[in-house]
Amino acid sequence: MSSTPAPGDECRSRTKTGTPSLGARIHALTAELYPICRSIAGPGVRQTLEILDREIGLGLTEVPTGTPVLDWTVPREWMVREAWIRDPSGRLVLDLSDHNLHVMNYSTAIRARLPLGELRQHIHTLEDQPDVIPYRTTYYEDRWGFCMRHRDFMQLPEGEYEVCIDAEHRDGHLTYGEHVVPGLSDREFLLSAHVCHPSLANDNCAGIAVLAELAKTLKGRRLRHTYRFLFAPGTIGAITWLALNEDRVDRIDHGLVVSCLGDGGGPTYKRSRRGDATIDRAMQEVLRHAGPTARILDFVPYGYDERQYCSPGYDLPVGSLQRSAYGSFPEYHTSADDLTFVSAKHLAASHDLILQAIEIIEGDWVPLSRMPRGEPQLGRRGLYGAVGGVAQGDGTMALLWVMNLADGRHSLLDMASRSGLPFSTLAAAAGRLRKAGLLDELEDTQVQQGPVTVTSAPPLPRQ
Amino acid sequence: MSSTPAPGDECRSRTKTGTPSLGARIHALTAELYPICRSIAGPGVRQTLEILDREIGLGLTEVPTGTPVLDWTVPREWMVREAWIRDPSGRLVLDLSDHNLHVMNYSTAIRARLPLGELRQHIHTLEDQPDVIPYRTTYYEDRWGFCMRHRDFMQLPEGEYEVCIDAEHRDGHLTYGEHVVPGLSDREFLLSAHVCHPSLANDNCAGIAVLAELAKTLKGRRLRHTYRFLFAPGTIGAITWLALNEDRVDRIDHGLVVSCLGDGGGPTYKRSRRGDATIDRAMQEVLRHAGPTARILDFVPYGYDERQYCSPGYDLPVGSLQRSAYGSFPEYHTSADDLTFVSAKHLAASHDLILQAIEIIEGDWVPLSRMPRGEPQLGRRGLYGAVGGVAQGDGTMALLWVMNLADGRHSLLDMASRSGLPFSTLAAAAGRLRKAGLLDELEDTQVQQGPVTVTSAPPLPRQ
Amino acid sequence: MSSTPAPGDECRSRTKTGTPSLGARIHALTAELYPICRSIAGPGVRQTLEILDREIGLGLTEVPTGTPVLDWTVPREWMVREAWIRDPSGRLVLDLSDHNLHVMNYSTAIRARLPLGELRQHIHTLEDQPDVIPYRTTYYEDRWGFCMRHRDFMQLPEGEYEVCIDAEHRDGHLTYGEHVVPGLSDREFLLSAHVCHPSLANDNCAGIAVLAELAKTLKGRRLRHTYRFLFAPGTIGAITWLALNEDRVDRIDHGLVVSCLGDGGGPTYKRSRRGDATIDRAMQEVLRHAGPTARILDFVPYGYDERQYCSPGYDLPVGSLQRSAYGSFPEYHTSADDLTFVSAKHLAASHDLILQAIEIIEGDWVPLSRMPRGEPQLGRRGLYGAVGGVAQGDGTMALLWVMNLADGRHSLLDMASRSGLPFSTLAAAAGRLRKAGLLDELEDTQVQQGPVTVTSAPPLPRQ
Repeated sequence: MSSTPAPGDECRSRTKTGTPSLGARIHALTAELYPICRSIAGPGVRQTLEILDREIGLGLTEVPTGTPVLDWTVPREWMVREAWIRDPSGRLVLDLSDHNLHVMNYSTAIRARLPLGELRQHIHTLEDQPDVIPYRTTYYEDRWGFCMRHRDFMQLPEGEYEVCIDAEHRDGHLTYGEHVVPGLSDREFLLSAHVCHPSLANDNCAGIAVLAELAKTLKGRRLRHTYRFLFAPGTIGAITWLALNEDRVDRIDHGLVVSCLGDGGGPTYKRSRRGDATIDRAMQEVLRHAGPTARILDFVPYGYDERQYCSPGYDLPVGSLQRSAYGSFPEYHTSADDLTFVSAKHLAASHDLILQAIEIIEGDWVPLSRMPRGEPQLGRRGLYGAVGGVAQGDGTMALLWVMNLADGRHSLLDMASRSGLPFSTLAAAAGRLRKAGLLDELEDTQVQQGPVTVTSAPPLPRQ
Repeated sequence: MSSTPAPGDECRSRTKTGTPSLGARIHALTAELYPICRSIAGPGVRQTLEILDREIGLGLTEVPTGTPVLDWTVPREWMVREAWIRDPSGRLVLDLSDHNLHVMNYSTAIRARLPLGELRQHIHTLEDQPDVIPYRTTYYEDRWGFCMRHRDFMQLPEGEYEVCIDAEHRDGHLTYGEHVVPGLSDREFLLSAHVCHPSLANDNCAGIAVLAELAKTLKGRRLRHTYRFLFAPGTIGAITWLALNEDRVDRIDHGLVVSCLGDGGGPTYKRSRRGDATIDRAMQEVLRHAGPTARILDFVPYGYDERQYCSPGYDLPVGSLQRSAYGSFPEYHTSADDLTFVSAKHLAASHDLILQAIEIIEGDWVPLSRMPRGEPQLGRRGLYGAVGGVAQGDGTMALLWVMNLADGRHSLLDMASRSGLPFSTLAAAAGRLRKAGLLDELEDTQVQQGPVTVTSAPPLPRQ
Repeated sequence: MSSTPAPGDECRSRTKTGTPSLGARIHALTAELYPICRSIAGPGVRQTLEILDREIGLGLTEVPTGTPVLDWTVPREWMVREAWIRDPSGRLVLDLSDHNLHVMNYSTAIRARLPLGELRQHIHTLEDQPDVIPYRTTYYEDRWGFCMRHRDFMQLPEGEYEVCIDAEHRDGHLTYGEHVVPGLSDREFLLSAHVCHPSLANDNCAGIAVLAELAKTLKGRRLRHTYRFLFAPGTIGAITWLALNEDRVDRIDHGLVVSCLGDGGGPTYKRSRRGDATIDRAMQEVLRHAGPTARILDFVPYGYDERQYCSPGYDLPVGSLQRSAYGSFPEYHTSADDLTFVSAKHLAASHDLILQAIEIIEGDWVPLSRMPRGEPQLGRRGLYGAVGGVAQGDGTMALLWVMNLADGRHSLLDMASRSGLPFSTLAAAAGRLRKAGLLDELEDTQVQQGPVTVTSAPPLPRQ
């Protein structure tokens, strides 16, 4: 790799040569996180964050039960020791130790004998997917329940059952973890993953593991933005973080909520509420070159924690990245979302997509031509093929596009959008043109909020 | 029906339980209007307006022949007593008493014997629809003529014919009728139908009858706007009304010209000249849920009296509603546009479409969130399903959309457009959220023209 | 033809009655230009411009070798006397006198004996089009080379070859020619064709010949704009003209670069860098009625001299017209682009397309209604069919559109775009309405840059 890589190069070379080990590393971490019985607060979250702390180092925040956070209140911790159902013959027909999804998440405790008719009211199944266990929660109402395969459910004999959920809700703390990769400015890029779901591999062990690997990738890079990785329980975790970081929210220039990053679908990007934020445009550029199944969706106020970041009082430029969109695949929120549903290849590809967006945002700048009248003579600068009369490749077209749009009103990302050429190709061309003395850099107005001025000093993120 | 219906509910319950009688009533009135021999001025218009006066009460305006109105002059009245053609053998081959379309509308009188060759110049037929009588007029040139089936026309034997049109043009008045349903403000919603066409059921007995029934529907409702129903001869009637109501024109905030409301096509909405008036957006919302044949057309300066209302000196926010668009169905302006061509079902559906648009415009408001930061906890307010992990229905999605867009820059109609959810679902959700104390109403800037202020007082049209 | 032709009429009547001779004349001139061995400077260009001077009169500019022009330098002249290759047996296997493309354009001189292996490095062929000679140039690097059919190339026997390129680069001048058709203002319409390509009929003998004929067509017309025809070598010619006419560039209100105007494809219009300049909108209007293969492309900074005119320091409203787009047809830049590839019919059609755009730009004006309230009564002015009830043709629809949009904010070109009617139909309608006293003309804000005022004086270009 050369000492001055064009934005995107690093990513591609990684894709070519580093993917196996990168994807394998992410998959291994996904697999380590998978068995943990998480909920919105309690030992499962803490155990998850400890693993991440070991991997990348985390700052942990513990917020006491009962703390008011925006319109909500920090809940009690939940832990479950055992949960099972015995049929009239005493046979164990459901056991939490077989699968974490067997107990409704955040269920109250129960120890009782009751007839099947009554028990049925407390058992959740999926009639049209009889071989999988659904994932169900009861965070905001006191109730108890089990989840099981519909096929097993249908075979339960009549009679009196014995049920046990040895669960406990107790005052304690909600826990979230943060990892910060510092950049040259305190403007932030937020990367957020929910850590509350129990044994669902794609949703969201995969997202957590991809972000952990990404934090390692960014470490030591010269970055314009500060990167904040937030690992928090869904909804209440993001709300708690927002409530405790009111003074920090305004620093967020870009953000991504990630989930479901390990399956073979998509990739799917959901725009921020604003719809035209820089992250929206950068992800659009990335997904334009990400294959025929890539999809971009408009914002809807349902999904993951973009719901909180994009609430009208914040309206942050935060989009959401997934492979298959939540709710669109049959494995979603069932026991079929297991480790066979995610692959090293797709986990690595997700890592690379986010990195590409970061490299676009880091590497974007506004070229200003020093030769705006007519085309500069690229040939005598060694920038143009010597033999005329033949069609031009992307490299030459990128040189022409950059010079043509270098009027101070187009960033490289704007040029990528207008030309249809990859950002990295344009960025490489702009670098060659600047080196040849044909371009200056208009100071980045995204970072510098003052009046724009022209400078020929080298830009921050490139050396 | 509950005492506080959500916008649209009333319409739907009417559709479910009241359609038969509503449609039958409109069809009966259509049928009563059908046989009358109308023209742009004279006894036919007057007889039509008398029937409407009996139904809903009308204010009649009689404008003397010769009155200058904008670029035009109020014409003489026209009446025709008899009209017929006898062939060389004395046989009656055309008789006005068989069909009002047999005489060219506004034809001059004639009593003559003349050879077939000469008579042919005065007979209008449709060669490609040989079994129907066309509708033709000669309002602005003195001439006489008949209309007949092409099949009959081809069988006329050579020889000398006797023809008679016992018609009279005399000074008198142009007549139009108005019915006003008062609202809380004097801002007006204009509903306009032409009343000059003779026996054409869809064009426009149907439109007249639908408006009459709609006037009954609105009577006694608490309305923000004043509803003006205008029944006037086409072109010259609208021009006369505009000329006599210069001081009133500026009050028109919304309007619809209706015609052809009884057939099975469409519905078809033609946008106002502005293209993005509130009525345009409301009708777009209504037609989005009106089935696969619903169509929205851009404004063209041809059609019915939207031509006058949307002339550049007025440029009123007046669109046009039809089922099949004029000129697009073979029965248009022929004797095939008879009472079998219109049905109670489609007449009632047209009534309901207009009512839905009215209910959107009446029921629109701008919610302002009291909990803009993060999502409010809907669950503890009983607004969110207790069991998590499952997909959300329209009702919950509507709650989320309203809260997410309740930034004071989106009305419910804007939200319907962005979310794709029905307006009525969003309005119901907004009502529940306001009742739960999560929303205030931004004063309607469409009615109040002053600076917008936030108020929690209940909005005008709901009680 | 009437004494006050509507814009476009003249063109159409020419198409109907004058095409054969017009097209034949253009084809004859194309054929006369075809054999000349042109390059970017030297006798070939001069010989080409002499023919044009004979046809339409030219002002010639000779710019000395070495003159700095923008970022470039005026090159030396190039002439080639003979060029050939003899095989080991002494047989002539390539001879410039067979085809001008056989020598690489601007090649340095060579006289040598060398083995086939070495010679091959200097021979350009097209492997996938083995029967044509490619066109190659080496303007900005000193090298020598030949171009030949791949089929012949493959049959060259091993052994020592004798090669000769008796070419000379010497200080002299770059030559360009200008022809000006004066108009009532000094605002200019630039029509630019490159004159540097040797024997390629479509690219650009055709474009040169079409412009020469167009200059004759415009001669003696009463025109609002001054028309500047520029015949210059590609790239360096346009750059030289721009460098020498800095004070004149700001006068250019519209422009077209033309090439490849004789084949059967397209027509293809490439928008100016601005994308919405008047020329872009006029050509869009023309091509909307130019058949199903007409295409409009967005600007890209590659192609012909629009690259220079649309560089960011000028950003002139100059688009580009071709039939088949460059690079999109297999004959492009090969010996197959010969006189059989272009036809009189397509040359004439190209002439007419440009003329139509000119007539739109010349004939555009902003009507202002004197009867803005309601429709004027067209019938009593003889402008409306007397018999009502029937559908309206384009002529009546044009009257209605013009009156409806005559609010001073729509030019006739705007009206064509919104209505979908041909510009010429709308212009004819507007002419009739002005004659009837229903319209005034808002002074053309494109020509007059001061504040707009209403005048009823007749517009300049019509008499």
